[in-house]
Amino acid sequence: MRQAALGAATSLLLDEGIAAVTFERVARLAGVSKTTLYKWWPSAAAIAVDGYFAVSAPQLELSDSGDIATDLRAQLGQFVDLMTRSVAGPAVRGLIAAAQSDDDVRLAFVVHYVHPRREIGGAALRRAQSRGQLSTKIDVQVLIDQLWGACYYRLMTEPDLVTATYLDALVDQALNGVAAAR
Amino acid sequence: MRQAALGAATSLLLDEGIAAVTFERVARLAGVSKTTLYKWWPSAAAIAVDGYFAVSAPQLELSDSGDIATDLRAQLGQFVDLMTRSVAGPAVRGLIAAAQSDDDVRLAFVVHYVHPRREIGGAALRRAQSRGQLSTKIDVQVLIDQLWGACYYRLMTEPDLVTATYLDALVDQALNGVAAAR
Repeated sequence: MRQAALGAATSLLLDEGIAAVTFERVARLAGVSKTTLYKWWPSAAAIAVDGYFAVSAPQLELSDSGDIATDLRAQLGQFVDLMTRSVAGPAVRGLIAAAQSDDDVRLAFVVHYVHPRREIGGAALRRAQSRGQLSTKIDVQVLIDQLWGACYYRLMTEPDLVTATYLDALVDQALNGVAAAR
Repeated sequence: MRQAALGAATSLLLDEGIAAVTFERVARLAGVSKTTLYKWWPSAAAIAVDGYFAVSAPQLELSDSGDIATDLRAQLGQFVDLMTRSVAGPAVRGLIAAAQSDDDVRLAFVVHYVHPRREIGGAALRRAQSRGQLSTKIDVQVLIDQLWGACYYRLMTEPDLVTATYLDALVDQALNGVAAAR
């Protein structure tokens, strides 16, 4: 029943967007009572986040060429493709949007979407630290925001501006800094 | 009448959030017909963006100490305070959220909120370039995303983590880079 509910919520999210994910429709589509859904999830959007995580988790593997600049460009490029050319884009943007007015959705999104991705990104950056490519003094979670956070902001405001040229500049500036040479 | 509508939409936005800004309520509160509102704005949220811009524009002046690191820390600190301790936070997050499912809102938000702020931020960064503090080779709009975009993403997911320590690390890493010294 839990799997059926997750599957139904994810289908609705990807096909019609976050507004279509209601207790009513998930219950009907999954053949599960609304009472049961209420017991398991605080809100319909929380089912959607859980379901989205299940389908998107396999995409989280990051490439590892041995060179951090190459890997970051490739990983950000894949992420931007996913956000702009697949149903994942509107789904994820819809979840972030829903999280702004519903703290249960925000917490579900943070636990099931943000943290798993931060952990995988953090591991890749720590690997680059151990290889001597990144400074060991930096906060890798802050670096994730400098890269992925920058992309999220642009994708949510001016998605057409997130081009390959943009990503090249982003990775180059993040790695090498922007201060004038002394 | 236009000012009355803007004032009404802004009050609703700041007091009750984006969901309260409807043509119905703006019309009633401002004493303007819904037909007139429809003529001027494509959506109720677009009135809210216009109105919010009018009240928030005076806050856009940036400090100029002569040192870019000091200024960036101060400016990001003020921005985070505004987003976490004032009614502007839920209002702006609500507008970004509404923009994800309504392209008219997104365009209004980009034109009236994002671009004016990017222009002012860009001017400050170009001033730092002309003073020899920032490299002249960088894309200042990308740097804005590395700093403000990073903050927006954290504020929309885990706002409690945007501390002074976080901002110090963000500014330091953006200015000096994260690559290991060669």
